[in-house]
This record gives sequence, C-alpha cells and structure tokens, in this order.
Amino acid sequence: MPTDPETILLTEQTDGIATLTLNRPAARNALSMALMAELEAELARLAADATTKVVVLAANGPAFCSGHDLKEMRGLSGRDAVASVFDQCVRVMKAIVRQPQPVIAKVHAMATAAGCQLVASCDLAFAAASARFATPGVNIGLFCSTPMVALSRVVGRKAAMEMLLTGHPIDAATAERWGLINRAVPVEALDKITAETAALIAAKSSRTVKTGKEAFYRQAEMDLDEAYAYAARVMTDNMLAADATEGIDAFLAKRPPVWRE
Amino acid sequence: MPTDPETILLTEQTDGIATLTLNRPAARNALSMALMAELEAELARLAADATTKVVVLAANGPAFCSGHDLKEMRGLSGRDAVASVFDQCVRVMKAIVRQPQPVIAKVHAMATAAGCQLVASCDLAFAAASARFATPGVNIGLFCSTPMVALSRVVGRKAAMEMLLTGHPIDAATAERWGLINRAVPVEALDKITAETAALIAAKSSRTVKTGKEAFYRQAEMDLDEAYAYAARVMTDNMLAADATEGIDAFLAKRPPVWRE
Amino acid sequence: MPTDPETILLTEQTDGIATLTLNRPAARNALSMALMAELEAELARLAADATTKVVVLAANGPAFCSGHDLKEMRGLSGRDAVASVFDQCVRVMKAIVRQPQPVIAKVHAMATAAGCQLVASCDLAFAAASARFATPGVNIGLFCSTPMVALSRVVGRKAAMEMLLTGHPIDAATAERWGLINRAVPVEALDKITAETAALIAAKSSRTVKTGKEAFYRQAEMDLDEAYAYAARVMTDNMLAADATEGIDAFLAKRPPVWRE
Repeated sequence: MPTDPETILLTEQTDGIATLTLNRPAARNALSMALMAELEAELARLAADATTKVVVLAANGPAFCSGHDLKEMRGLSGRDAVASVFDQCVRVMKAIVRQPQPVIAKVHAMATAAGCQLVASCDLAFAAASARFATPGVNIGLFCSTPMVALSRVVGRKAAMEMLLTGHPIDAATAERWGLINRAVPVEALDKITAETAALIAAKSSRTVKTGKEAFYRQAEMDLDEAYAYAARVMTDNMLAADATEGIDAFLAKRPPVWRE
Repeated sequence: MPTDPETILLTEQTDGIATLTLNRPAARNALSMALMAELEAELARLAADATTKVVVLAANGPAFCSGHDLKEMRGLSGRDAVASVFDQCVRVMKAIVRQPQPVIAKVHAMATAAGCQLVASCDLAFAAASARFATPGVNIGLFCSTPMVALSRVVGRKAAMEMLLTGHPIDAATAERWGLINRAVPVEALDKITAETAALIAAKSSRTVKTGKEAFYRQAEMDLDEAYAYAARVMTDNMLAADATEGIDAFLAKRPPVWRE
Repeated sequence: MPTDPETILLTEQTDGIATLTLNRPAARNALSMALMAELEAELARLAADATTKVVVLAANGPAFCSGHDLKEMRGLSGRDAVASVFDQCVRVMKAIVRQPQPVIAKVHAMATAAGCQLVASCDLAFAAASARFATPGVNIGLFCSTPMVALSRVVGRKAAMEMLLTGHPIDAATAERWGLINRAVPVEALDKITAETAALIAAKSSRTVKTGKEAFYRQAEMDLDEAYAYAARVMTDNMLAADATEGIDAFLAKRPPVWRE
C-alpha cells in the first residue's frame, strides 16, 4: 500500500462552512485509527467553534470511504486492541449525531461498511448518481454490526437486511429511494447541491439549528407522551430566545432577519 | 388581518362521518388558541358520540393550515403564556392519535409547521397534487420541534431532517413517496377519495376499528415480545366480542355482516 | 372443505437450503393449529441443524397463505382456547425472527392477515408481481392486531394504517415500494431470484450470518448509546472468531475464503 499523504484529513473553512475531506486516496480512505482519531478531534474542535455553522464530510480519490483499515486490523493482537478500534469508530459516529452543527455527507463515490455508516450517520447526504453503497462485511466473515446501527435507523428493515446479508452494493438511486441519502445527482452537480444546501443552512440562526438537531435525535428515542413533553419545553425555550423574537418580527414585517447567534 | 368569521371551526355530521373544517381562511387557518381549543373540544365531543364512525379534518381557504398564529404568539408575555400555547397544541395532536375514530386529513393546499404536524398526526391523509408541506420554523428562528415529533414518526430521518433544516416545502408527490400522506390525487378527485375511504371505514364495526387503532399506536412503542403479548390479548378479546363472531359467520356464509357496535 | 393432504408442511433440504412449503392448497394454506405447530417444530429442528444455512418459506396452491383458519377458530369455545391460537401464532412469528438462519419468504400469490404477517416477519421476501398482500381482518370484525406488530415494523405508519383500516389488498409493486417485500419479479423469475439469494447467503460463514441476524433485531430495540455499546461488543467477538480472520486474510490475498463454521 502506498504511503499516506502527510495530511490524512483536510479541513477547509469558508463562510461558516467547514469541509472535512478524507485524504487517504490510495487506501480508498480506509478508517485507520489515525484517521478516526483525527476526525473525532476535528469534529470536537469545530463543535466549539462559533463561526462554524455547517460541517461537510467529503473525500478524495476513487472511493468515498472503504470502511475499517483491514490491514491495520489484522495486525492487532488481543481483544483489547480490537475493541479499541470499534470503540473509536463508535465515538466518531456518535460525534456526528451529537455535533451541534448539521453534518452533510458529500458522497462522490463508493461508500462501504463503516464508510456507509458515515453516510447513514450524517444528518443529510447527497451523492453522485455513480456512487454506490454497501455493507459487505458478511463477505469476509465480519458482519457489519456497528454499521447496521446507523443503517437500520435510516432505511427499512427489509432493505437493511438485504444489504447486510447479501453484501451487494446498491446504486445511488436505490439509496435515495430507501432513505439512506437525500438525493442522487449527476456527479457534476454534486458540489453545487452540497454547497447550496450548506449555505442555506449556514444562513439560519445557529442556535435554532443546534437546538433543533439535538432535539430531533433525543425525541426520536422517546415514546409519544415523553417526546411531546420534551419537545414542548424545547420549543418554549426556543420561543423565548432572541433569535425567535427577531425571526418572527422580521417575518411579520416582511424583512430579512438579523440573527444574533 | 381581517376579522375571523364567527365560526372558526365548522362541523358537519353525515352518515357516521364527522367533518371538521378549519375556517379561518383569511388567516390561512393559523392555529390560534381559540381554534386549538375548539378542535380539542370538538374531538372530545365526537369521541363520546357513538354515531360518529370516522372524522375528516378539512380546511377552507387558500391554505390547509399555516401553523401557529404568529401575531398572537408575539403578543404573549412570559414563559407560562408561551408554554401554554405549545401545551394546547400538544393536547390537540395527541387527541387525534388517541381519538377512538380514525381521523383522515383532507389536504387541499399548503400545510405548514403545526399544520404539517396535523397531517402527520392523522391516521390517514389524502392531498391534492397541488398541496405542499413544510416545516419552515427554522426560517424564523423557531425550529419546528413539536411538529417533528409527529413528522419523524411517519417519514425517514434523512427526509425529516431535510424538511426541518432547510425549511423548504415538498410537493404532494414527494410527501406520498416519503410516507407523510397516503395519496396525492388531482385536486378535483380529493373530495371523492376522502369520502369513499371515510364511507368504507364507517361501514365497518366501530368497536373493531377503535380496538385496532388504539392497539396500533400502543404496540408501536413496545419491543417485540411486549408488543406480541399485548396484541395477542387484544386479539383474543376482539375474537370473543359479538362483532367478530358475526363477521366470521357472515364471511363463512358469504353474506354481508350486520354489526352491533 | 376438502380434506388436507397427509403432509401439510413439506420440507426439502438441498445444499444448505431448507425449503418449508405450506401444503394446504385447498384451504389456501390457512394456518390451522396443526400447521402452526408443524411450522414451529420444523423451525426448531432446523435451528439446531448445522447443515442448514438458509430457510425458504414457500407455499403450494392458489394462495400463499390466507391467515388463520376461520372455520377452526369458530369451533373453539372459551377464552383459553382462543388465546392458545394467538399464542401459537405469536410463537411461530417470533421463531422466524429468532431463527439463527435467515428466513426468506417466496410469495407466489396472495398473502392475507397472518399470511401477510409471515411475509413481514421474514428477513427477506421476494414476490411474484401478481401476488397481493392484505390485512383484511377489519372486514370480518377481527382487526389484524397481531399481524400489525410485524407489519408496522417494516412499513411506514400511514401505509400500515391504510392496509389495516381499509382491508384493501395492495399489489406487489406497492409492497416493494412500501418496504413489505424486497422485490416484486415476474412470476416466472421468482424461483430464480429466491434460489440465487438463498445460495448466495448459504455460501457465507454461517456463524457470521447468525451473529449478524441476532444482533440486527436486538439493536433495533435499543437507543443509540446502548445499540452501539452492544454492537461494538458483538463486532469485537466476531473479529476474534476464526471465520473473520480467514475472511480478511482471503480478502487481502485476493483468494476465496474457506469457512470453518
């Protein structure tokens, strides 16, 4: 395997949008321990950065992400070493869900195993029509058990089981139909739809977006009574915050709002 | 804003079908406290009315429902006043889910924010092909946190997040594909499909329908073992009731059933 | 009603694939107590059979399965007798979900009520384009309350409610779109897609498939933190098993794997 470039995760920050780009092209962006650690650290840094409104997760090279780094994994010895890889992976995936900013996957090519899990874990995902998605661990005797946690929360059970049991890739149109991604677009339109959606969200009140994203995943795990009691509290707090007052006043006065947060 | 008509919620009862029509057309049927209180009271009255078999929720004017009444909300002062609006809204939405009769949304035009939540909360929903659906609170700094409780229980996570984070409306065909509504039809076919479906359900055993609807939402919040233990008890009780005996006898004898309840 | 054939459940075992065929064609494969007991017993026998890698559930005659045997049910007296039928039914449906091997429904024709529940309960389902699916209990005063436990876990709420409240059948294309089945194919292609998928899965490591299937349904009932903690443990154990080591080595060496289990 060719040596990694010096920087395996690139960060670019423009106009409130932070783009993280997986940069191990020769390794098909396999999630080595080093790459997962960098992703986790960079997400944590951005979480604390008030200028960052949206995070885009992109990748360089012929694949979006091929999942765990199998060569590295086969070199591990002992249960603790193996467990630490999956624990690290879980921390990254949960960090995406817990990230205060929305995270948008920009999938230009194949996303496999934990790479597919990255896509499933993001709040939104756009993909090139030529991209494909698979959870093929079953083919190498290692079922995609952690990827399925994210996968089964965005696609139906029959669809998830088909991907997990057969290991077959699905195309981007199928991924859209099943709910794994928001939209499949011609590859030349991928930058545009991602940038426009990121800019659209970046122009909104960050505090409102953060409040809403957090509440979304929390209420999803509650029963109806609990979810409504919680969401009504969240919405009351939200209504009393400065940005809602400004937003409603601007709306009623038919002028653009000026957000504080 | 023009004055409301005298009657902001119209009720019509024919052949076991009660149609509730939101009637604040000039305010795009915004859910003022008064309108929500009337809806809650009318649903409670119909819940206790043995002649009502099905409830249809419709609306007059250029929109189906535009959500909360923002002018009214901006006039509130203090946390308690704001909280009471969302509590009232939650009571209405839960009343639809808990209503013993099926509730069918008949959506002739735009349904926004808590208006979209009404559609998501109904058991069934038919819409004109020209209707649109949005949760645009994020645009005014007030995330649609209570609407998302209903929305995220009927559409997938990526779809819900797209509606919530962008605020963009979706058309009726998309709403059907995503599961927010049952069917988008040409606007001139909306009355017919709604009336026919309501009549079809009204002709069934009310007790059976009530039993089934209640069990549906209860089992949805249980794990598999608990859900099956509960559903088997419900179905045993149902089998021992007069209408099942009559229904099975009629089926085996190839004659139409005569329901008692 | 014509007499049942001597063997109401046929079993064929070839190349690791066990095909169970419902064989009460004249009764449209209604799930009599005898047939459910045989299904449960045969699934238990296969669960303990190391040579069985995949189970296919098929049926003979003009229907796939018409649900409970109504004539038999009307002959029951007393709550205990009725309860025992639904308990038996629940045991069969849960056995499919808990079966260590994947279970594939091969649906050549109409699947109704508990017959539709069989399809919903299988891990994968293929159907002839001419097959149809319904939960019509509401038409005979007996709401499909146990079928809805399985149905509502594979299709969206609005779709499930439509099937349950109207009793109307849906065609195979709709069943695919809604997530009840994996694929609708021309009737003459049904044998092929089922056999090919079964063979594909049978060629994988049985232990890996069993581990993955069990984890799938368990994590589906957990919240995100719990699901990830559990799945990471499962995947660590899986990685330390012989078949993963072999699978990864074979993959890295670009040779076919040789499974031990």
